[in-house]
Amino acid sequence: METMRHSCSHLLAAAVMELWPETKLAIGPAIENGFYYDFDPSPPAGGSGQVFSDADLPKIEAKMAEIKAKNLTFIKKEIPVEEARKLFSDQPYKLELIDDLAKTEGVNVSNLQGVKLNVYETGNFVDLCIGPHVENTKDIGSFKLLSVAGAYWKGSEKNKMLTRIYGTCFPTKEELDEYLNFLEEVKKRDHRSIGKELDLFSIDDSVGPGLILWHPKLSVVREEIELYWRKQHRKKGYQYVYTPHIGLDNLWKTSGHLQTFKEGLYPPMSMELKNKEEAGNYYLKPMSCPFHVRIYKSRPRSYRELPVRYCELGSVYRYEGSGVLHGMLRVRGFTQDDAHIICREDQFEKEINNVLNSAMEMNAVFGFNKLNVYLSLRNPEEKEKYVGEKETWDKAEKVLKEILEKRKIPYKEDIGGAKFYGPAIDLKAVDALGREWQGTTIQLDFNLPLRFGMTYIGQDGKEHTPVMIHHTLLGSMERFVGTLIEQYSGAFPVWLAPVQAKIIPVSEKSLEYAKSVAEKLQNEDIRAEIDGRNERMQSKIRDAETEKVPYMLIIGPKEAESDSVSVRVRGEKDLGVMKLPAFLALIKEDIAKKRQV
Amino acid sequence: METMRHSCSHLLAAAVMELWPETKLAIGPAIENGFYYDFDPSPPAGGSGQVFSDADLPKIEAKMAEIKAKNLTFIKKEIPVEEARKLFSDQPYKLELIDDLAKTEGVNVSNLQGVKLNVYETGNFVDLCIGPHVENTKDIGSFKLLSVAGAYWKGSEKNKMLTRIYGTCFPTKEELDEYLNFLEEVKKRDHRSIGKELDLFSIDDSVGPGLILWHPKLSVVREEIELYWRKQHRKKGYQYVYTPHIGLDNLWKTSGHLQTFKEGLYPPMSMELKNKEEAGNYYLKPMSCPFHVRIYKSRPRSYRELPVRYCELGSVYRYEGSGVLHGMLRVRGFTQDDAHIICREDQFEKEINNVLNSAMEMNAVFGFNKLNVYLSLRNPEEKEKYVGEKETWDKAEKVLKEILEKRKIPYKEDIGGAKFYGPAIDLKAVDALGREWQGTTIQLDFNLPLRFGMTYIGQDGKEHTPVMIHHTLLGSMERFVGTLIEQYSGAFPVWLAPVQAKIIPVSEKSLEYAKSVAEKLQNEDIRAEIDGRNERMQSKIRDAETEKVPYMLIIGPKEAESDSVSVRVRGEKDLGVMKLPAFLALIKEDIAKKRQV
Repeated sequence: METMRHSCSHLLAAAVMELWPETKLAIGPAIENGFYYDFDPSPPAGGSGQVFSDADLPKIEAKMAEIKAKNLTFIKKEIPVEEARKLFSDQPYKLELIDDLAKTEGVNVSNLQGVKLNVYETGNFVDLCIGPHVENTKDIGSFKLLSVAGAYWKGSEKNKMLTRIYGTCFPTKEELDEYLNFLEEVKKRDHRSIGKELDLFSIDDSVGPGLILWHPKLSVVREEIELYWRKQHRKKGYQYVYTPHIGLDNLWKTSGHLQTFKEGLYPPMSMELKNKEEAGNYYLKPMSCPFHVRIYKSRPRSYRELPVRYCELGSVYRYEGSGVLHGMLRVRGFTQDDAHIICREDQFEKEINNVLNSAMEMNAVFGFNKLNVYLSLRNPEEKEKYVGEKETWDKAEKVLKEILEKRKIPYKEDIGGAKFYGPAIDLKAVDALGREWQGTTIQLDFNLPLRFGMTYIGQDGKEHTPVMIHHTLLGSMERFVGTLIEQYSGAFPVWLAPVQAKIIPVSEKSLEYAKSVAEKLQNEDIRAEIDGRNERMQSKIRDAETEKVPYMLIIGPKEAESDSVSVRVRGEKDLGVMKLPAFLALIKEDIAKKRQV
Repeated sequence: METMRHSCSHLLAAAVMELWPETKLAIGPAIENGFYYDFDPSPPAGGSGQVFSDADLPKIEAKMAEIKAKNLTFIKKEIPVEEARKLFSDQPYKLELIDDLAKTEGVNVSNLQGVKLNVYETGNFVDLCIGPHVENTKDIGSFKLLSVAGAYWKGSEKNKMLTRIYGTCFPTKEELDEYLNFLEEVKKRDHRSIGKELDLFSIDDSVGPGLILWHPKLSVVREEIELYWRKQHRKKGYQYVYTPHIGLDNLWKTSGHLQTFKEGLYPPMSMELKNKEEAGNYYLKPMSCPFHVRIYKSRPRSYRELPVRYCELGSVYRYEGSGVLHGMLRVRGFTQDDAHIICREDQFEKEINNVLNSAMEMNAVFGFNKLNVYLSLRNPEEKEKYVGEKETWDKAEKVLKEILEKRKIPYKEDIGGAKFYGPAIDLKAVDALGREWQGTTIQLDFNLPLRFGMTYIGQDGKEHTPVMIHHTLLGSMERFVGTLIEQYSGAFPVWLAPVQAKIIPVSEKSLEYAKSVAEKLQNEDIRAEIDGRNERMQSKIRDAETEKVPYMLIIGPKEAESDSVSVRVRGEKDLGVMKLPAFLALIKEDIAKKRQV
């Protein structure tokens, strides 16, 4: 597949050169799901050149098809460097690549004499290329050019901005169409466009990048999830706590954040500016763990009260370069659904197993039935990234591995995926489109309890150090709810839907009955809204569909007489006329069972 | 009363001088609820002097009674400055006070010659004093010395630390006893000691002063209040939103916080330290209003959708000097129960009236049936403290006044009590001890809408500026829950109690039945706990009383046989044996009605 896609990128370059022979070629590799080629479309004299846009893609595609139809062989040739320099004398990027060879070999450029280089020829087109390629252009399957984007030469902002054309290629037309449908679906589900369309959230320049303003409708979704999350945790013996969003630098020194997580912290608030007598500076919290530790340490603990399980929806802040920020999925401020179990050594295996069960249960509620499991380990080559002794780490990693193996859960190892204080089991949720989303993480930590001097009095009357398990089941409210917008295409299941039932009176005459229906629903904690506008019924239904409201209750004189509602379901389904109590029973069951309509 | 208390402070000083004649006298005024006198007890040579402690108070009191019994007249004398200097030649603080006179008069110290000063004599004791005093020591009522504390001379840290003795005095023994009982009750209810005793919260040096760690039990109380608060707000048409805890300096410039609230802000996070390309610095939010404004402004608004009512439990941070911090009642980080109504001019009167109703309703739920009303106005002499035009302020103040007067609500004016953007109606709750607590504030704001350029399209198709009402019904979770601890002496009503029922099996044999009772209660969302320790029943009951659990369910073989529980109520009341369903009905009604046991 990769070979074919790489060959297809040559086809793209050949087509562009036939159409605009002045174009300068950079590079054109295969990538995940496709390929690209980078071009410098400006003519050498610096005059106005061809700058490709999406509008040019059909023309280029047609030319590619024409070349492919010639059934040209990919001919590999080994030529001396001097000959290559002549061949690419009007292709400055290729010449630079040839010179780069010297750097790779660690020799002077002039020393490249005698060295041989690979080039590939297809018809009139020739490219400097290590290969391999398919034999003949007829071996290239169905292709499609996807988009045009800017890209710096060699990925560096210091270099010239080139024009990148992305494409993809599959062995068959069916496979290509399937993939194009997938892309279409991904685009339709983009939480940023749905978020705007449904008035769900915004990111505001005057507030700051990566900081989410949750609008009322999405706040309903979040609140429902938080209520469910709290209830589940209480049921399983967790105690909710509230902790501040800032802490003194000493706290972050003890935790190790200042030493190993500094680049992820927002800059300090320098208290000297306020008052010379203030001790230390404050940092916004990047994690809640040190606060939970301090609550644990606020009084002596006995082995009898362990495990102690704290949980908190803790808002944390981490600095990320503005380039990587992405809607709600990659942000700077987020609310973790955080929990810490503090327990004895003889307890943590059972606790971790319980957390695994909770995680699978909770993910399934949101339709994430498939979870890919990763064992996140430290990277032994980056010792400075971690706190604690090698032996402690070895033990923690071994324990997690054994737990997964005992339960026969298939997993992949993610070397370097561990947090600085311990290894983790990460469960990535697979969504409706087969995409993987980071969610649950369960971290085993022998280090922070030592650093913070946490203890409990054992049955032997002596002080012991407990073990700490950090976990989050959903990851963060921002990322998780962002994921859910894409998972559901904005059409939330009834229990989460911001408006659960839209009441549509067919005319003003039915408004009174509509109000009494709304009141009855609201009294049962159903989020019901009346569309009392002076519009045609069909257009009100259409608007409710656009709003993705799960139930539409059409109300006319007949319904008013019979204490009924005419029920339509999102997605243009009609349930016909129902008595109001029957509808109430239906929607309440949807909510209780957390199901889609 | 003030005259009598001031005279009593002379009695105190006279007694101290008789007991320790080397003592140096500072000043001794009457204060709210009593008086004090500041002494410098070290002998002039700097040798080891008498330093008063609480243990000395009875001896001093006895001497005071002895002097009072002499029925001495307070004799006022006017003497020249020169004579006063001689009279107080071994009293350096008095000499300094005489010199201070020159400063008051704006003349040189030597120019005081000929000026006359007041002194008061009682027996052998004489004090420099402007008066007035009671006629005779027999006119001083019942007194009590209360405590000893350190106090800087003239209140400045640069001066010497003196010893202050506090006392109080009432016309009759009955009034004194009543006040002393009140003080005893205040001390017993102190939320800091109850908080420690019941493991409710802590303030941690490594986290920072004024930042509250909510322990699990108090977090239950807070969560219940928050759930109730959210439900009430949703019912009244508010929409919950979530907003970040930080914002760029531009936001705070637009809002006016950087200009008029700078001293209340934590220092900025200087983004230059991270990346030169980051625009601006971040501030922790001291208020949530600008974020709600940005949500409002995220799309165009029509007159039809007004009023828009946003609410949020928003955690904010304000810098306060460490000296004024006090437990949960005066903190640096707190969660406001915040709301903003954005409405048309023809709507705000009704909206403010609705908020007043909600505030009274909600305060009453917590037993605050008496509310003292204040109209908080700007101080016209501190113009630099406020944003906006005089006319706008005049209008806003007039409107609030009219609303109170139309409803015939008695109120006091609090000049200078307004926030920088508008005047307010403040409701102060009066607690079980008659103390006043800051709670509800309702602010009318014509200024921020202008500063932020908020608009809506009116029925006339043109842009208009809306009005904003800021309000919080409880104030902040920290202060309000701190107040509640004192209001209830830690004995929370059933709906708030961290543990609602303690199940006490009389012996291990009844443990199985105890577990089944606990499960049945938990299934009905009752917070029930088993005390399964191997202790005597009486001591378990005592411990549950100490924990202030509202219900204790004693369980033995008889109860197990009859599916009953033996119910005890906090405060050593006995309800006898009840069938389990009857107890369930009882406790559920307590919860639903939010009542005390």
